[in-house]
Parts: sequence; C-alpha cells; structure tokens
Amino acid sequence: MIAPGSATIGFVGTGVMGGPMAGHALAAGYRVVVYTRTRERAAALLEAGAEWAASPAALAPLCDAVVTMVGYPTDVEEVYFGDGGLIANARPGTYLIDCTTSSPALAARIARAADERGIHALDAPVTGGDVGAREARLSIMVGGLADDFAAVEGLLQVFGATVVHQGPAGSGQHTKMANQLAIAASMVGAAEALGYAHAAGLDPERVLESIGAGSAGSWTLTNLAPHMLADNFAPGFYVRHFVKDLRIALDSAAELGIELPGAELASRLYESLVAAGYGGDGTQAIWRLYRDR
Amino acid sequence: MIAPGSATIGFVGTGVMGGPMAGHALAAGYRVVVYTRTRERAAALLEAGAEWAASPAALAPLCDAVVTMVGYPTDVEEVYFGDGGLIANARPGTYLIDCTTSSPALAARIARAADERGIHALDAPVTGGDVGAREARLSIMVGGLADDFAAVEGLLQVFGATVVHQGPAGSGQHTKMANQLAIAASMVGAAEALGYAHAAGLDPERVLESIGAGSAGSWTLTNLAPHMLADNFAPGFYVRHFVKDLRIALDSAAELGIELPGAELASRLYESLVAAGYGGDGTQAIWRLYRDR
Repeated sequence: MIAPGSATIGFVGTGVMGGPMAGHALAAGYRVVVYTRTRERAAALLEAGAEWAASPAALAPLCDAVVTMVGYPTDVEEVYFGDGGLIANARPGTYLIDCTTSSPALAARIARAADERGIHALDAPVTGGDVGAREARLSIMVGGLADDFAAVEGLLQVFGATVVHQGPAGSGQHTKMANQLAIAASMVGAAEALGYAHAAGLDPERVLESIGAGSAGSWTLTNLAPHMLADNFAPGFYVRHFVKDLRIALDSAAELGIELPGAELASRLYESLVAAGYGGDGTQAIWRLYRDR
Repeated sequence: MIAPGSATIGFVGTGVMGGPMAGHALAAGYRVVVYTRTRERAAALLEAGAEWAASPAALAPLCDAVVTMVGYPTDVEEVYFGDGGLIANARPGTYLIDCTTSSPALAARIARAADERGIHALDAPVTGGDVGAREARLSIMVGGLADDFAAVEGLLQVFGATVVHQGPAGSGQHTKMANQLAIAASMVGAAEALGYAHAAGLDPERVLESIGAGSAGSWTLTNLAPHMLADNFAPGFYVRHFVKDLRIALDSAAELGIELPGAELASRLYESLVAAGYGGDGTQAIWRLYRDR
C-alpha cells in the first residue's frame, strides 16, 4: 500500500501532464523525487519541495513507486530497459507505473521483465489533457495485476477522477487505444459535418446550434468544433502525438487480426497534416483538410 | 401567422414521427386534418379530434399549413408534385412544410414550384427520433424565406425544443445532412472502439466506464454503445433510412464538389448491413460488422 506520509514517489517526465501530477502528489503529502530531461522544466516542483535525481537510475532506488510520463514508446523503452533503466535499478517491491500512452505489447514486455526482478509494473495511460492533469480530473485506465492495482489505486486517485482497473498488463494501453479510436472518428465526423455545411453555404456556427445538442452530439463537436470554425489550431493535443497513438492502435489491431477502416482513414488524414507541416497544431487542425474544399 | 384557434394544419404521414407531431398540434388547439397511406395508423388521432382526408389533394385546400413527414424523397415528390399533389391543390398563401429528411435539391425544386403558385414552402427536417417527437423535444432545422419561417415558427415550436432558421430553401436539409455526417462517424467510432476492446480481451462495458465521460464521449457512446454490447438491435432509427440519408448526403456533396471519405466509408458499411438483411435493424447494428472479427 502506497500511502502519503510514508511513501516516496518518483516522477520521470514533468511536462504538461507529469508536472501537475507530481505537484498533486506533493500536495497530498508524498515525498516526491523528480527526473526530467530538461531540469528547468522541474523548477517549480523543486521549489515546492520535490527532490531532484540526475537520472532514472539515480531516482529508482529512492522510490516506493515511480510514475513515468514521457513522449513516445521509444522513450518508454529507454527509461525502463537497459543498465540505466528503472527495472535494473529499482528495489524489489517497487511499483512502476507508466502513464505514457504507449504500446500494449511494450507494456506487457515491461511487466514480464519487472516481474523477473520482483518489481510490480502497471500501465496507466490517462485522458483528460493538460486541464484534467491540472485539475486532478484525469480518467486513468490501468493494466496490471489486481493486487498491484489495489496497492497504487489511492495514489492514482490523487491525479484522477476516474481510476479503473481494466485487466492484465497492457489493458490500460488497450483501453486508451479504444479511446483514441472513438476520438479519431469524432474528429473526422466534426470536420466533415462542418465542411459540408460550409460548402453548402450555411453558417456553420448556426448549424452547430441545431446539431450539437442532439444525437450527433459529442465532446468534439462541443469543445473543438468552435476552435475549428475560428481557425484556432493552438494545441490542446498535438497532431503528431495523435498520429503516434493511431499508429500504435493500428499496429495493435493488426496483431489482434482486426480491421479498423475508420481509424485507417483518420490516420491517413492526420499523417497528411504532419506531412504538410502541421504536426505541432492541435488535433482540431483536421479542419484544414475540409475548410477549403 | 399560423396560430392555434384559427388555423387548420394538415398532416401527411402519421407514423412514429408525424403521428405525435399531429397530436401535439391538436393539443395546442389547432384544427388538424390528416392523411396517411394506411388509415388505421391515424385511428388514435381521429379519436382525439383530427379529421380525415382521403388524399393529399383532398387535404390541401382545407389547410393553412401542411406538415409532411413521409419516407423517401420519392414519396416527397409524389406528395408535392403532379395533379394529386399538394402544390396543385393548396390555396395560394398556404405554408407547405416538409419534415421528411430528403434531398436539398428537391427542397429547392419544391420551393420554386410552390412560389410560382403563391404558396410558401419550407424544408424542416428534424432530429430527436420517436422519443423527441413524443416529448415535443425535436431539433427542427428550417430552410426557406425568413418571412415564411417567422409565420410558422410558433407552429414548429409546438413540436420542437430547438427551432432554427438555417437559410434559404434546402438549408434545413443541408443542416440535417451535416447532422447525419457527424452521427455516421460517431457510429463507426463507437463500433471500432468497442470492437478493438473486445478483440483485445477487455470487458467493453468497463472500457465505456473509462472512455465514455471524457474527450471520446458522444451521444452515440452513451446511448447506443450499451445496446451494441447487449446485441440489442431493435430500431430507434432504421439502418435502411440511414443508408438513404447518407446517399443523399454523398450525392449532395458531389454536387457541391467536396469529398467526404468518412461518410463514404460509413455508407459502404451500412450498405453491407442492408445487403446482409439487416436494413430493419437500428443503426447500432453496425456492431454486427465488428463484434465477430
């Protein structure tokens, strides 16, 4: 049982998601140790009482649980594996919790390698974005052993409003993939609905008034469609990260032997945005592909 | 101005949508005349005080406004055009309001033909389904002249919670098409998310718990995904009607010169359901294409 007052929590990666999560852990009374590639990004946490570790290898042995929130699956591999990685350097009994959105297969591989050293690994990707991280309202989807989930559930509830154990190792990542598949379709639907309305000479904002609250309604239509219509492409969630997620989902679907034509379409559309130089836009930039048709 | 007490409203088509709408008009104090192909379907309305007309031609001259809610664009053509149609038989000054989901081009053609006889035509398709019709909570998307909209707005508010003038003749149908495009994508997204979860060995109901309330959330995920998982394909909205709507939307998009790859995909998937004999299922039957993969 990982409890405030007695437990030390490590955080690897303290960006727009990991930073606020580490802050919530500090505020809840945990001892917090942080490592991030660019030390300046941890400055506020260090001022608030977090301790600094110079590497994942230096951080791991100090901690009862380590939360990782890095960028890509390749970053996850680097942080967990190898001589300088968490698995080689954590004490037996430590809980390693990967909150990065990453590959289900990699999550299962981490869990096996951790288990061989008596370490407990869980995959726990989140949804809710930077706002959800700041306000501790994330939805956290957890894969791993039931006993391990029970041990860290209280810690995860410090960051999240909805914390659900989805099954064995990899199940958190699989759930996040299902989430991204639903979002991908919503983005295509919002862009096509508004693109059609625009081409038909309607006022798309007035169209949203008619269709937003009914059976066509979605979080995307309510929250991102207005940004589309304002040509506001400031990133809440980066196009290039969404492309990564859809690539993981499609690779994983191929391993599972299923076809996801909707996700394949969305992936092609988003890859065309990256190719056109819009990888740093928010996902609502799919509107770029429809507004000028 | 079409007002209760003085105005007579005709209803052509008194099925699951038109029936309750005619009932609300009666309850609001309008004189109501009905025609429907199968007289028994109007029995409850006739008992409640509506009068019967033996044909659209017999109904039209009795009315200040006529609301049509029939099946397909071919039915709309039959009801409006020809010697026995509404346009030939309505008095000048009558308001003809087509609530059928139909083609924007046909709506514009009706408006032109009506105008030549001094008749006011509006297209006013609805969303909200049979429940929305019964509870007078429809969203009604109206195309036509602003003065004509103003004259019938009060009548439409008897059926609808959201009544919005979207622009000239055809604009109501265009708005409804935008609505169906957003729904089509949501259906694909829900089916792919659940299909992936199912194939990955997760409990899809628990996955909904994690993803339903966040940025993947939609009316479809909240209201239809549980029916999918229960293999409950009872129709709220028929697959074959959705196929019709998507066909209209894609034809209309082609006329406007835009491509809608998401809608093309959804249309192919739904057509495959009809081909497999599931045209009488509800739209959530798209799950049939994913659950067994």
